[in-house]
Amino acid sequence: MNFIDLIEKKKQGKNHTKEEIKYISDSICNGSVSDAQISAWLMAVCFNGMSIQETADLTEVLAFSGDKVDLGEIKGCVIDKHSTGGVGDKVTITLIPLLAASGISVVKIADKGIAMAAGTIDKLKSIPNFKTSYNDIAIINQVKNIGAIIASQTENMAPSEKKLYSLRSTTDTANSKELIASSILSKKIASGVNTIFVDVKYGAGTFMKTPEEAVSLSNLIVDISKRLNLSVTAVVSSMEEPLGRAIGNSIEVIEAIEFLKGNINDGDLAELTYFFASLILVKAGLFNDCENAKKYLKEIINSGKALEKFAEILSAQGADPAILNSYDKFELPSFKVECASKKDGFVQYINAKSIAMALNTLGGTSDNNFSEIDYSVGIYLNKKSGEFVKKGETLYTIYSNDEEKTKIAQKYCDEAFLINDSKPANKNLVYKIIGIEDEDV
Amino acid sequence: MNFIDLIEKKKQGKNHTKEEIKYISDSICNGSVSDAQISAWLMAVCFNGMSIQETADLTEVLAFSGDKVDLGEIKGCVIDKHSTGGVGDKVTITLIPLLAASGISVVKIADKGIAMAAGTIDKLKSIPNFKTSYNDIAIINQVKNIGAIIASQTENMAPSEKKLYSLRSTTDTANSKELIASSILSKKIASGVNTIFVDVKYGAGTFMKTPEEAVSLSNLIVDISKRLNLSVTAVVSSMEEPLGRAIGNSIEVIEAIEFLKGNINDGDLAELTYFFASLILVKAGLFNDCENAKKYLKEIINSGKALEKFAEILSAQGADPAILNSYDKFELPSFKVECASKKDGFVQYINAKSIAMALNTLGGTSDNNFSEIDYSVGIYLNKKSGEFVKKGETLYTIYSNDEEKTKIAQKYCDEAFLINDSKPANKNLVYKIIGIEDEDV
Repeated sequence: MNFIDLIEKKKQGKNHTKEEIKYISDSICNGSVSDAQISAWLMAVCFNGMSIQETADLTEVLAFSGDKVDLGEIKGCVIDKHSTGGVGDKVTITLIPLLAASGISVVKIADKGIAMAAGTIDKLKSIPNFKTSYNDIAIINQVKNIGAIIASQTENMAPSEKKLYSLRSTTDTANSKELIASSILSKKIASGVNTIFVDVKYGAGTFMKTPEEAVSLSNLIVDISKRLNLSVTAVVSSMEEPLGRAIGNSIEVIEAIEFLKGNINDGDLAELTYFFASLILVKAGLFNDCENAKKYLKEIINSGKALEKFAEILSAQGADPAILNSYDKFELPSFKVECASKKDGFVQYINAKSIAMALNTLGGTSDNNFSEIDYSVGIYLNKKSGEFVKKGETLYTIYSNDEEKTKIAQKYCDEAFLINDSKPANKNLVYKIIGIEDEDV
Repeated sequence: MNFIDLIEKKKQGKNHTKEEIKYISDSICNGSVSDAQISAWLMAVCFNGMSIQETADLTEVLAFSGDKVDLGEIKGCVIDKHSTGGVGDKVTITLIPLLAASGISVVKIADKGIAMAAGTIDKLKSIPNFKTSYNDIAIINQVKNIGAIIASQTENMAPSEKKLYSLRSTTDTANSKELIASSILSKKIASGVNTIFVDVKYGAGTFMKTPEEAVSLSNLIVDISKRLNLSVTAVVSSMEEPLGRAIGNSIEVIEAIEFLKGNINDGDLAELTYFFASLILVKAGLFNDCENAKKYLKEIINSGKALEKFAEILSAQGADPAILNSYDKFELPSFKVECASKKDGFVQYINAKSIAMALNTLGGTSDNNFSEIDYSVGIYLNKKSGEFVKKGETLYTIYSNDEEKTKIAQKYCDEAFLINDSKPANKNLVYKIIGIEDEDV
C-alpha cells in the first residue's frame, strides 16, 4: 500500500477499506507519512466525504492507535460531555463540578481550540498552575478520589487522532462532519468512558451553519456509535450567539465560577448547563424526569457543593482554590474599554462569529499552532439578546493589552450587535435531541 | 490576510486576487506557512481549479519570487524545451546537444521526477560527476561558451515554485493543469529564456489521460503566455506508450547517446527529436520549413557534431566525456533478465503506466522525496509496437539489483504488452501544435 495512492483514491471519491484506514493511522503513528501528505488527504476528505462505514472504521482505528484507559474499577456511568465548539461555551466548566457534586463520575478529555473556537483546555490554562497533562493511572486515581477530572488527551491516547486534530486546525479541514465525528468519538473510546453526551452546535459561531447540518452530524455520530456499541446522546443547540456574557479565557472561567456560586440563575449559560446536567442525571438513573433532576441540581448549586467540588478539582490538578474568591490571581489585562450603545433599543442578535473574530484579534484564540494565546483578554457582553439598552449605556466591554488591536476588535463587536425597537421573541437554545429514547427525557 | 482564509476561499471555489496570490508565494518564501497548509491549499486547487487570470498571476508571482537570470548578453533566441513528463522520455537529452550543435542557444532548466515520471535531472545524475547545481553567472557563462546548459533550478530561481513542486510530487496534487502550467512557465520566465517549446503529453504514462485534456492544458499554457508576453509553442504528443526502447536512468542516457551517434534513425525517439529540433530551427529563423531543417539536422548528427556538443556539455558540467564510448562507466546493475514472448504476433500496444510501475518497483523512480533512486536499473523494450515477435524471442529485458523486485516488475511488464496476429496501424505521435502560426511550420 502507498499513501499517495490512498490520497488519489479519496480524491476520486472512492471509499477506503478498513485495512487502508488502518494503514493511514499506522503511517501517521510511525511517521512514514509527512504532514503535507496527511493534509492533502484531509482536504480530499473534506471535498468527497466518507461513508458511515468508513467513518466508523476511522473512529475505531484512531481510538486504538494508542492505549485505552481502563476505568473498569469505577462503578456505574462514567460520563463525558463534549461540545463541538462555540463562542463563549464554558458549559464543560460549569457542568463537570455540578455533575461530580451530584455523584456522577466524569472523565472529561478536553481539547485545545480548533479554528475559531477557544478550547476548554486553553480556558483552564488561564488558571495558574492548573495541570491538564495526565497519564492513565493518574486519571483513574483522581476519578476514584474526587469523581471528576478535566484533562488533555494523554501522550498515548489516540495518538493518530491527535496528529489529525492538530493538522485540521491549521489547514482549514476542521469542518468535515466525518472528521469531526471520528475525532470526538475516538477520543471518548480511548478515554474509557461509557456514557457520552455531545453538544452539536449550529450557527454563526461554529462549523455547522444550519440546524439541518448539525442534525446531520448528530445522526452520523449516533449511527457510528451504534456500530461501535457506544452509548451516545447528541443534542443539537444554537451557537448563533455567544453563550453567556464572557468570551475569552480567564474571563470565561470567572463566569463559570459565578455560576457555580449560584450568582447566575437565568440566561443561556444556566439554561444549557441545567439542561445537560438533568439529562445526564436521568440517563444515569438517578432521577426519572428532568424536572426533578433540575430541582436537585439547583440545590447542589445553592448549597455550595458544586463550587466545593470545583475547589477539589482545582486542588487535585495543582491549582490554588483561593482563586475562586480572588479573581486577581488570574493574569490580568492592562486595560478595559467600556463601549456604549449608539442608540436606544432591544438587542435583537449578537453575531457569534464577529465576536470570535474580535477575540482572535485581541489574541485570545490562535488560528495556527504557533502563536501564544493571551489568557487575560476578552469581551464581556453587558447586554444580551432580548435586553434593552439606552444610548450611551455600556453595551459590551473589551479587556485588552493592545490599543491598536482593541480598535479592530471594537469594529468587529459593533458589527456583531443588531439593535432595534421591538422586543425580540424568545429563541430556543436546544433544537433537537438524538440518540435517546423519548421516555428518558 | 490569513492563509487559512485563503485555503477556505479556494475550498469554496472562489478566485484569488493577485494580492492574495502574492501573499501565498511570500508566505511560502518567508516560511510563515507550513507544508501542511500549502498542501491543503494545493488539494483545494486540484478540486476547484483556477481561472486563467489567477493562473497567469500565479505564474508571474512564482517567477518573480526569486531572481531572474539575465541572458541579455546572448543574442537571438534562447530556447527551452520542456516535456510535461512521460515514460522513457529522453528527448531533452537528445535535443539539447543537437540544437546547440546547430547554433541555437539553449538554457534547459530541468526537473527531478514528479509522480510516475522520471525527471531529466535524475537521468543525468546517472552520469558520474555530472553537475546540475549552478548559479546565474555560471549559467550565463556556459551558454556563452558552448551554447547550452542543462541545469537544475538554481537556489534563488522561483523559490516558491520549487517548494510547491516538491510538495506536489508527494501529495497527489501534481496533475492540476493550472499548477502544471504555472510551474512550467514560472521557471522558464525566471531562467531568462525567450522562446519556449512545451511537449504536452497525453496517455497512460502521464497526467493528462486524453488528447483533449492535453489540448486544454496546452491552450491554458499558450493563453497565459500571451498574457505574460512570452513566446510559447505547445505540442500535444502521445505518451500512451513509452518513448524509445530504454526506460530507466543510465539506460535512457545510453539510448540518447546512441541517437547522437547516429545509430538510431527510426522510431518514435528519432521522430520526436527531429520534429522538435526542426520546429525550433524554423522558429529561430534558420530555416523556412521543417523539411530542410530536418535534412540539416541529420547532417549534424551524421557528422558527429551533435555527439561532440554533448561531449562539450559533459566536460563543462564536470563529467568525463569518455563515458560516451565506455558505457561501463555508468553504475551497472547486478544482473539482467531477458523475458521471452509467450506467443507469436505483432506488438499492438505497450502500456506506459505499467512500464512506469515496473521501473518504480525496481527503484528507478521515487514516489516520495525520501527514497534514493537506483540509476542502474531499467527496462529495455526489445520489441516495440508494430514489430513482430516470435514465441520464445526476447520481448523485453529487465536490469535489476533485486530478485524479488524483478519478479514484480516482470508482472507489470507482462501486463503492459498486448500482442496479437494483425499488424497494427501506424500511430501518430504528434496530435496538435498550439501557439504557432501555420505558415511557420
